[in-house]
Amino acid sequence: MAMDSSPAHTKVSLTGIKPTGYVHLGNYVGAIRPALALAEKYESWYFMADYHSLTSMRDAQALRHYTRSVAATWLACGLDPERTVFYRQSDVPEIFELQWVMSCVTGKGLMNRAHAYKAARDRNRENGVEDLDAGVNMGLYNYPVLMAVDILAMETDVVPVGRDQLQHVEYTADIAGSFNHLFGEGYTFKIPLPMVPDESTAHTLPGLDGRKMSKSYNNTIPMFGTEKELEKLIKRIKTDSVPVEEPKDPDSAHVFQIYQHFASPAEVAEVRARLEKGGMGWGEAKKVLFDAVNAELSPLRARYNELMTPGNTELDEVLATGAVKARKRAGAVLSAVRRAVGVA
Amino acid sequence: MAMDSSPAHTKVSLTGIKPTGYVHLGNYVGAIRPALALAEKYESWYFMADYHSLTSMRDAQALRHYTRSVAATWLACGLDPERTVFYRQSDVPEIFELQWVMSCVTGKGLMNRAHAYKAARDRNRENGVEDLDAGVNMGLYNYPVLMAVDILAMETDVVPVGRDQLQHVEYTADIAGSFNHLFGEGYTFKIPLPMVPDESTAHTLPGLDGRKMSKSYNNTIPMFGTEKELEKLIKRIKTDSVPVEEPKDPDSAHVFQIYQHFASPAEVAEVRARLEKGGMGWGEAKKVLFDAVNAELSPLRARYNELMTPGNTELDEVLATGAVKARKRAGAVLSAVRRAVGVA
Repeated sequence: MAMDSSPAHTKVSLTGIKPTGYVHLGNYVGAIRPALALAEKYESWYFMADYHSLTSMRDAQALRHYTRSVAATWLACGLDPERTVFYRQSDVPEIFELQWVMSCVTGKGLMNRAHAYKAARDRNRENGVEDLDAGVNMGLYNYPVLMAVDILAMETDVVPVGRDQLQHVEYTADIAGSFNHLFGEGYTFKIPLPMVPDESTAHTLPGLDGRKMSKSYNNTIPMFGTEKELEKLIKRIKTDSVPVEEPKDPDSAHVFQIYQHFASPAEVAEVRARLEKGGMGWGEAKKVLFDAVNAELSPLRARYNELMTPGNTELDEVLATGAVKARKRAGAVLSAVRRAVGVA
Repeated sequence: MAMDSSPAHTKVSLTGIKPTGYVHLGNYVGAIRPALALAEKYESWYFMADYHSLTSMRDAQALRHYTRSVAATWLACGLDPERTVFYRQSDVPEIFELQWVMSCVTGKGLMNRAHAYKAARDRNRENGVEDLDAGVNMGLYNYPVLMAVDILAMETDVVPVGRDQLQHVEYTADIAGSFNHLFGEGYTFKIPLPMVPDESTAHTLPGLDGRKMSKSYNNTIPMFGTEKELEKLIKRIKTDSVPVEEPKDPDSAHVFQIYQHFASPAEVAEVRARLEKGGMGWGEAKKVLFDAVNAELSPLRARYNELMTPGNTELDEVLATGAVKARKRAGAVLSAVRRAVGVA
């Protein structure tokens, strides 16, 4: 965690949320909870990166629905629009004009080395596709510049990122530095710092098959299905075949790994002891897990369903309020940048 | 000239003007006159592509000044803001949001084959630079997408282009076609057609050194220096050393080549005859050229100087009116596109 020593509560933290599907328990534990915890320490800005999704999504109805669903999920989980700024990227046109400016100060070589682009080339190489750029669109290729602008337009101080996202913040610093070098007399971008969680506090959940819970593995437990669906999915979590009466190893059990994130230390200790002693079967463990998860999710699910009810405009109002704040900040940056480069 | 047969006067023609320096006589004869002639046949839209200049210009004051100067030049040359739409690219933020959308439907391979980008790589190769992308910024690389959006955002029917700019219109059709294929149920872009002038009507002027008049050769005669500067530059036009009394070949003489574009057929025939007969020296020919050019430029220069006078807001008003029209049209396109892709 690279941070200077000025009072943390005055600093701006920015989190982008890309809506490409329903939020699942892995997102909740690994991303939503830690992000919301930051709102205690920072002036937190969250945005729905709907235009980012366009690099891969070609289904307008799905994008519209997921954007709404994911935004409602974050609000249901406790994102407080009174204390934080919550907006949709597509509601801030200033970002896209700034993207053009920043493109003009970004070396192409930087993009050639971007992880997502290199991964796409690697896939082509592995599949024997001769043109390594096959299937790569300019949205994917330009993605790191847009990401940089998302950050810079809001004068962000810190960006909470996983280790695999670190490059984006490094690129942002590079691109901002390039602008500052060329046009710094007119405007100077604030250079943001990444905030990488300690390994000890980074949480990933196993999915139904034991691999990391992830949409791309199709092994997720969505947060806001019905209770019945939740129960059914939890029953499908992979277990070993140790009989009920025998001792079990909690730490290698996916059911227990998930349970740890939804129960108090006392409850966790109790279930651990019962599993280690023998006599608690996986069926019972799953019932205990379901009760714990459902107890936590029930009020959130009710709130989510309320927000998603057709005719309820609460979500739109929250995002509209956020858009005004985001446009104000990005607009001030853009005005200064326009003067600095000479189009105004 | 590929065009269908519906009445030409209802069609929209779009011309972009990139302000990177003062307008010279070569621009006037080769670009401004033919572009303004089109306003007789089309609903003509002209724009100052100031944000395009940013791919190479890093001097805010110069960009600001040239944008103003070039716009004033076109107005002085007869661009009629009552009949045509004249705006600044940077006044139309909708263009940049659309650029992001169109990036997402543009294959990277298309950009790899763009002329300007390939030329930059060739230069690196010739200079023995190992990284062929060295010095290439993402503005230059993305340039064809922005160009496509300039055209598509205004629902352009025809784009007057030189043969070397044909690729841009082809790319625009490709990119629009890709969007229409993916999201055509929601919105369909009009596919623009290029309008390439017949070779016989394409005009280039020789510069002071006899090569094509071009800013990059530093051999230009700016349109709106003072009369004295104009006279001085015309005196510097390269000639051969055939003595006054001897016959001369008008067609190989740069002075005569330029004169043809500024005199009536009768005057041109007279000077041709005198040169061929002998007895007219280059000094006199240059005097005749100066008189003809100056006679045409004098009223335009006066108007230009008026428009450029500090405190005169006429130019700003024209561009502001144009911006309103351009934003209205681009805004309607953008709204439809936003719905079609699912961010609205």
